[in-house]
Amino acid sequence: MLGRVNHVAIAVPDLATAAESYRTMLGANVTEPQALPEHGVTVVFVTLPNTKVELLEPLGAASPIAAFLAKNPAGGMHHICYEVADIIAARDRLKEAGARVLGDGTPKIGAHGKPVLFLHPKDFQGTLIELEEV
Amino acid sequence: MLGRVNHVAIAVPDLATAAESYRTMLGANVTEPQALPEHGVTVVFVTLPNTKVELLEPLGAASPIAAFLAKNPAGGMHHICYEVADIIAARDRLKEAGARVLGDGTPKIGAHGKPVLFLHPKDFQGTLIELEEV
Repeated sequence: MLGRVNHVAIAVPDLATAAESYRTMLGANVTEPQALPEHGVTVVFVTLPNTKVELLEPLGAASPIAAFLAKNPAGGMHHICYEVADIIAARDRLKEAGARVLGDGTPKIGAHGKPVLFLHPKDFQGTLIELEEV
Repeated sequence: MLGRVNHVAIAVPDLATAAESYRTMLGANVTEPQALPEHGVTVVFVTLPNTKVELLEPLGAASPIAAFLAKNPAGGMHHICYEVADIIAARDRLKEAGARVLGDGTPKIGAHGKPVLFLHPKDFQGTLIELEEV
């Protein structure tokens, strides 16, 4: 069921500093910041040959990463996103197997314009998993 | 400088349970456990089309992931490993740029039999970064 790792998301308190570290210290290709107000984050992509890392900074009062950064003020790895071919089939299989899908189980349109779902970290060893239909 | 994401490592308290969750709930291809006593972990690989996820369980009294699991008993994302072509050149560039390399800066032979170094999470927004020469 799981396809490619679409991205690894890292929550950061200051996006400009983080982007600069990845550029200058790690010699990585980092895109310009994109504000995604409907998702409550500003993002840059660290483009790698086989996948990407997304650095996320909170945007607005109700950012979905605000609580994580309150608990981890320096930042940290926030979630991993796997691609699936059919998100409804994936959801149904997961629910059948006893996994908890966050929210009401209806896929939302994610930051890349594709349907996404998040799975409860308690069912996956403390890891927040995003599934994205591609 | 950064090449492919070689793997994302997730520390787990119980490897059998974790492997089973990835197999049955997520339909992933998970290898059989390998004990790596010289690295203080037992590992399974979740094989994905473009990279892999490593699930790590502590092995022995001095496991390098014991402190992380004491702080995160349910488990969690532990580090991300990027490939580099020349680990000595990468180290020298990082030190020149002010990043802290863990240990004495001499690459060690990692779990895949290749030279590796770890970078201080405080220099990279709370993310433990491993570099592996491939």
